[in-house]
Amino acid sequence: MTDTATNMRLKLPLTCFILEIIIIILFGVLVQYDKETDAKKWHLEKKNENKSDYDNDFYYRYPSFQDVHVMIFIGFGFLMTFLQRYGFGSVAFNFLISAFALQWATLMQGFLHGLHDGKIDIGVESMINADFCTGSVLISFGAVLGKTSPVQLLFMALFEVTLFAVNEFILLSVLDAKDAGGSMTIHTFGAYFGLMVARVLYRPNLDKSKQRNCSVYHSDMFAMIGTLYLWMFWPSFNSAITAHGDDQHRTAMNTYYSLAACTLSTFAMSSLTAHDGKLDMVHIQNAALAGGVAAGTAGEMMLTPVGSMIVGFLAGIISVLGFKYLTPILEEKLKIQDTCGVHNLHGMPGVLGAIVGAVTASLASREVYGDGLEDVFPKIANGDLSASTQGFRQAISLGVTLGIALLGGIVVGFILKLPVCGAPSDAICFEDNIYWEVPEDSPSHGDQLASVRTEESEKLNS
Amino acid sequence: MTDTATNMRLKLPLTCFILEIIIIILFGVLVQYDKETDAKKWHLEKKNENKSDYDNDFYYRYPSFQDVHVMIFIGFGFLMTFLQRYGFGSVAFNFLISAFALQWATLMQGFLHGLHDGKIDIGVESMINADFCTGSVLISFGAVLGKTSPVQLLFMALFEVTLFAVNEFILLSVLDAKDAGGSMTIHTFGAYFGLMVARVLYRPNLDKSKQRNCSVYHSDMFAMIGTLYLWMFWPSFNSAITAHGDDQHRTAMNTYYSLAACTLSTFAMSSLTAHDGKLDMVHIQNAALAGGVAAGTAGEMMLTPVGSMIVGFLAGIISVLGFKYLTPILEEKLKIQDTCGVHNLHGMPGVLGAIVGAVTASLASREVYGDGLEDVFPKIANGDLSASTQGFRQAISLGVTLGIALLGGIVVGFILKLPVCGAPSDAICFEDNIYWEVPEDSPSHGDQLASVRTEESEKLNS
Amino acid sequence: MTDTATNMRLKLPLTCFILEIIIIILFGVLVQYDKETDAKKWHLEKKNENKSDYDNDFYYRYPSFQDVHVMIFIGFGFLMTFLQRYGFGSVAFNFLISAFALQWATLMQGFLHGLHDGKIDIGVESMINADFCTGSVLISFGAVLGKTSPVQLLFMALFEVTLFAVNEFILLSVLDAKDAGGSMTIHTFGAYFGLMVARVLYRPNLDKSKQRNCSVYHSDMFAMIGTLYLWMFWPSFNSAITAHGDDQHRTAMNTYYSLAACTLSTFAMSSLTAHDGKLDMVHIQNAALAGGVAAGTAGEMMLTPVGSMIVGFLAGIISVLGFKYLTPILEEKLKIQDTCGVHNLHGMPGVLGAIVGAVTASLASREVYGDGLEDVFPKIANGDLSASTQGFRQAISLGVTLGIALLGGIVVGFILKLPVCGAPSDAICFEDNIYWEVPEDSPSHGDQLASVRTEESEKLNS
Repeated sequence: MTDTATNMRLKLPLTCFILEIIIIILFGVLVQYDKETDAKKWHLEKKNENKSDYDNDFYYRYPSFQDVHVMIFIGFGFLMTFLQRYGFGSVAFNFLISAFALQWATLMQGFLHGLHDGKIDIGVESMINADFCTGSVLISFGAVLGKTSPVQLLFMALFEVTLFAVNEFILLSVLDAKDAGGSMTIHTFGAYFGLMVARVLYRPNLDKSKQRNCSVYHSDMFAMIGTLYLWMFWPSFNSAITAHGDDQHRTAMNTYYSLAACTLSTFAMSSLTAHDGKLDMVHIQNAALAGGVAAGTAGEMMLTPVGSMIVGFLAGIISVLGFKYLTPILEEKLKIQDTCGVHNLHGMPGVLGAIVGAVTASLASREVYGDGLEDVFPKIANGDLSASTQGFRQAISLGVTLGIALLGGIVVGFILKLPVCGAPSDAICFEDNIYWEVPEDSPSHGDQLASVRTEESEKLNS
Repeated sequence: MTDTATNMRLKLPLTCFILEIIIIILFGVLVQYDKETDAKKWHLEKKNENKSDYDNDFYYRYPSFQDVHVMIFIGFGFLMTFLQRYGFGSVAFNFLISAFALQWATLMQGFLHGLHDGKIDIGVESMINADFCTGSVLISFGAVLGKTSPVQLLFMALFEVTLFAVNEFILLSVLDAKDAGGSMTIHTFGAYFGLMVARVLYRPNLDKSKQRNCSVYHSDMFAMIGTLYLWMFWPSFNSAITAHGDDQHRTAMNTYYSLAACTLSTFAMSSLTAHDGKLDMVHIQNAALAGGVAAGTAGEMMLTPVGSMIVGFLAGIISVLGFKYLTPILEEKLKIQDTCGVHNLHGMPGVLGAIVGAVTASLASREVYGDGLEDVFPKIANGDLSASTQGFRQAISLGVTLGIALLGGIVVGFILKLPVCGAPSDAICFEDNIYWEVPEDSPSHGDQLASVRTEESEKLNS
Repeated sequence: MTDTATNMRLKLPLTCFILEIIIIILFGVLVQYDKETDAKKWHLEKKNENKSDYDNDFYYRYPSFQDVHVMIFIGFGFLMTFLQRYGFGSVAFNFLISAFALQWATLMQGFLHGLHDGKIDIGVESMINADFCTGSVLISFGAVLGKTSPVQLLFMALFEVTLFAVNEFILLSVLDAKDAGGSMTIHTFGAYFGLMVARVLYRPNLDKSKQRNCSVYHSDMFAMIGTLYLWMFWPSFNSAITAHGDDQHRTAMNTYYSLAACTLSTFAMSSLTAHDGKLDMVHIQNAALAGGVAAGTAGEMMLTPVGSMIVGFLAGIISVLGFKYLTPILEEKLKIQDTCGVHNLHGMPGVLGAIVGAVTASLASREVYGDGLEDVFPKIANGDLSASTQGFRQAISLGVTLGIALLGGIVVGFILKLPVCGAPSDAICFEDNIYWEVPEDSPSHGDQLASVRTEESEKLNS
């Protein structure tokens, strides 16, 4: 009987409680206010260094943090509500794994980005970084949406956050790569990790659930809320942790124009490729965002406004083509069932963003950046690296990211296959009823599900 | 005939016009720009005190104000749209009473927080305080949701804002209590006031409307918009009026971690207590927010990150248990029909927050806070109060709040019982059709209502 | 056959690609980072003028920009989703034309607001101005909503943005008028331009589509998301480009109180004029916003809090009366089919705002504004203009705006009539199915449409 397998009564509470108690213990032992959130330290610093309250990083970054926060919880959460019977799971599992991942990311990133006297110092920048890491997990969630239990999702988040922090450490601290908006660390990593998990969790009989693997009119409207919040706040996402002043300003503006150009190429390609010249909501909801992904690495560089537009323009084209032609191939040939098409929104545009970043970095010079070179490329500015070496390291970083994501995704996929995780069977995917008390307002759907269940238990009994 | 009683044609316009005209007259007589919104005064101050435009409080607080504003209008408004046939009433009465309450609160708080030469000075901080006071009214609205006319709601707001201002004055100005995020002033007050109003307005035959006192699939999705905006922006809520610098920064971060921990304990408890281990949307929509309420008083203190998490963790557990076991008892034994379960989201977590605040305050010391002690506990810093006295006064403040809320709620409840207010009858609660032109897209519901009305008028005629 | 005319397969991709490629070429030739987004220039300026990163305008304006951005994409987009079968078109055509218009506006406003060495300098202020100009196009979109193809909308945006920039240039640079929140430049212009376009595109047989020209329960809920975001963020809209310090602070606050008062008069008037005293969602969704429009010009002036309230109060009354009594007259007598009632929300309140602005400006004095006079009325402060001349010029500006909008709208309307634009026929207006792949969840609507189409093709064949 399926019900036993997917029953969460003990599994989910145990998982949540154990994870949260471990986090609380580790926070108790390891985490402390940084010098800008600690009352005593901040007032000492203000006095000793003659600072004003505005020097507290809170005022530089908190508005961007809140925009990023909205992208994580509303943006990703509602983008995934397009499925007709998986709205609760989309928005609320997104909520659950984000709330977990941001705590775990604080610890993992804290370990790797350097302890202070054996302690992890936290403040608004670590909060942004924790949200960024969470974003990566949510991208992977998109690949397995509707086919996983909340326990599987929590385990995926646990391992993915850890690997994310390792990859991020290698890129930013070992290779000195730049990736402020995370084309590599967040998007490429999250997408290819999630695709590998989906590959390992391949479901040969998923077409039994295909009648629910599509949208209805209202679910597409809910999804547009997610799309638009991601689109509007992407300038804040890419600029949230860039250097103060021109860097944050330029990054936000580059992203703004990249997204605008991407939106036009997305509409054009959707109409060009879809049936009868009609527009396809899937493209608008997803591909129009590819411009933000592709500007993730180079957005803080002197990409120029026109450069940003060209990047966004190409990203939109690539992304729609991916939805139209690549996703079916991935599913049929490579057995990767990518529910949300994260390969098209985060995978390919992330790789494009990494390449654009490598090229742009290799062209950096003091002539173009002036003294601003120290903010964007400190290693070039102080002579440790040449621009071409920086570019080369950016390219290496893409390779490292792909390697860790692909390998990590396979390993974690196998962990999630353990029967104890309570995955739904192929015939009841994309269905809230498995894990949620669903109000009885859609008799037709209810009946449909009931019949599916009966069928299935008959099979199991036979 | 019910229609006469609930017909708003004269009552609502009259109430709105009279209230607004009184407000306009009082604003004309009493209210003026403060020295940061007045062109002349600000430029004088800039010149005389050698200030920059950044010293204008607008730049410290306006982003937080906007987040709070979203919580009031979208957060509370959509959180209450979970009812299947009360979406218009939820979001639009929320809109109406908020627009009124924030104006009235400006006057009431202005009177009590000190006039300047007989005038009320207003600026961004008074706007935040007005929104806070409005939040308290919306909490009470949650307790009586679906069972009140807009005229009743406006009267409730009128009296509740006034009592809120009195209670706030006693707490902050007489008792020198600290309550930046309003665990006491906003949440405890709003919840127990609303519960008492609901008690006085007890409807013995409310089960005639019970078929509409529940959600449908899409209304639960709309409610999640409200939940998530409250959750995401709660760090801004608690930090909106704390001192500049480390205080705002620390308060926001404490709230962030409290909410994250609360979300995990909420999912755990929901699965543990609900039928078949399935998750219950009511818990996710509400209890996951209890961590923000419970960090309302102590959030600005040196609660530590782990302390914040423990508080949030407990708040989630208490809140789910309240929904599961206490709400039915309140209804059956105490005759309190609490539509949204505000006792579980704001009542108990508010009391928890007040207690945590009292304990944390009683542990305050210059050793921990350094010179920051002056910002958080000015009376302890200048030697007027000992830490234990501060803690004691925090505890007294909770008692005062409960006393004023309970007594005030009873009195106001009896005022709202006056037939002139146009309350709906027991059989047509939770129904937009009474006060709204509802588009004719749900014949089944329309029929249902029509039959209810017929039944009822038959009864009235017999 | 209708399908050929409305088939977008070639038209829409070609239009999007050509427009975007033109934009990219013009950006490549003409557009550069301004001195606050360019790494080299900013660091030079910091060094030479001893500035801090906070002097970068990004920190003064970016939070307001993001609020404006949300108003454009979520606010306008969802406000127009009230139609039962035009949700995709409302939110996604809004998305498309905004993404185009903001790029085109950057160029048009850049040309007219002054080139620097033959280049257009861009930064956060130009981004806000581009979004503002986009808002004007969206207002016009509201007048023709559901009756136009995406190609028509892109052409309308192309021409309207251009005329907007010309009108804005005349008002702000030639006439030295003040209009920070755009009562004239944005609202009056957008409304009357759109009304003229609607007049030229008059559809005598539009009643064939009237069964879809109304809302359903859920579409009204989606529309409230748009309403509330517009309402909440309007203070940011009006203050986004006012001078730093008291000006931004005062403008935001004036708008806040204007909107609050407007909301009460809107509810009052809706109940007073609607059937049986029931409230009408159309009024709440629209008229409650008129207070923001009407405070668009005078919001930055010393309008006083009570003055702001009176303006908002009147705007709400005028707007509801317009919806109730004027819209039917416009349609029947003047043959202007104004889908969203933009005349009531943006037209009349915009004119009111212009008049209030002219009167308030004519009362300006150094006695009231102190040294702040230089920020609000630099020409009065330096003696170039008297206050009464400023007021007179404000009034002239309203006339110029009306003239350009009305004439421009007529001309552009005739351009949009060209058959190549692919407008839907009268019988299939307000219907997503024409331009969108719509999921098959509403058989009744589908059937209805199918029968409409059959009818129509029969007619065309006969």
